[in-house]
Amino acid sequence: MHGFSDEERERIEERLVETGRELLRVYGPHKTNVKDITDPVGIAKSSFYLFFDSKAELYVEVVQRESDEFLADVEHELEGITDPQVALERLFRLYAEFAETNPLIQYREELLNSISPALLEELGTEQLADYEPIVESIQERSDGRFSEYEPATVLGVMGTIGYLAVHREELDAYREGYYEEVRELAIVALARGLTAPEV
Amino acid sequence: MHGFSDEERERIEERLVETGRELLRVYGPHKTNVKDITDPVGIAKSSFYLFFDSKAELYVEVVQRESDEFLADVEHELEGITDPQVALERLFRLYAEFAETNPLIQYREELLNSISPALLEELGTEQLADYEPIVESIQERSDGRFSEYEPATVLGVMGTIGYLAVHREELDAYREGYYEEVRELAIVALARGLTAPEV
Repeated sequence: MHGFSDEERERIEERLVETGRELLRVYGPHKTNVKDITDPVGIAKSSFYLFFDSKAELYVEVVQRESDEFLADVEHELEGITDPQVALERLFRLYAEFAETNPLIQYREELLNSISPALLEELGTEQLADYEPIVESIQERSDGRFSEYEPATVLGVMGTIGYLAVHREELDAYREGYYEEVRELAIVALARGLTAPEV
Repeated sequence: MHGFSDEERERIEERLVETGRELLRVYGPHKTNVKDITDPVGIAKSSFYLFFDSKAELYVEVVQRESDEFLADVEHELEGITDPQVALERLFRLYAEFAETNPLIQYREELLNSISPALLEELGTEQLADYEPIVESIQERSDGRFSEYEPATVLGVMGTIGYLAVHREELDAYREGYYEEVRELAIVALARGLTAPEV
């Protein structure tokens, strides 16, 4: 394909994703154009489209990759925790940290506007499927009510922590540190409420 | 003042707020202009500014009024409930309903863009102060951990239910009814987690 060997192709794709990820993090999706991504990789701008249909598709790849790394991190962090409430609280706290630093959250509106609804729906469905095993692994540690919830619904509830991060500035406008206070109480209350023993 | 008696002034202001509220609900803040509001009230467009400095200020009044009505409704609905978990769950459910139908949520971005940051901060602070007594009244029914939380932080946690409503479409894009499932589990888990007895 246009003179790229399979090996070169793989190496270039990898560098495009890494470069796109760095630029996305620093400048956001709109201020980054395709040439900004291909220049450091040393390929022509037109060659970009041999690898991705659009800039948005590269961003989806970046989001997926961040998400995979997050999941690997979570798996590692939850190892050896037997109490489902403790495990859930840890998961929610890691997710909050992830949401606070993730470019998908930071440049949420811009990204949502640049990615097509169909691609976005696919991404959402894939991500939920990727995250479900984490919830299931905590459910295996529980013999109480937590084991009965649908993993996707629990993930939706975890998503409220992500929305808090999305709206962080609004919360901090009320008073410094308000976001952190609210986040902490929400994390603790949700983890406790999802796992509290039946009375 | 321009030939309006005190009585007329009061009546006109009331009708401006009510007309603004209806138009805001149906058309949103951007598609509504000052003349759309003054015409049904029967005053000249220029007279609007004898009552409000800007359209945004009228909207703030509408938001305040919706909020006051919500609070009166909550107070009524919580009467006679002695269990803090039941009271909190009821409060969160009423708030979800309020958020789902409130023009402030429905036209959130537009309104946030049209109201100045200073006015917005004032509105946020006022609303928190208005809502705190509700949390305090539930805290009076509790001798457990719930009585120890700062009311403003509890309100921030309740706000996560509002953010869910803001992002309702995103959730329902995943699967029909997903928003409702997530909202229900979040409400129940938060109410339980905030009031669960110490172990």
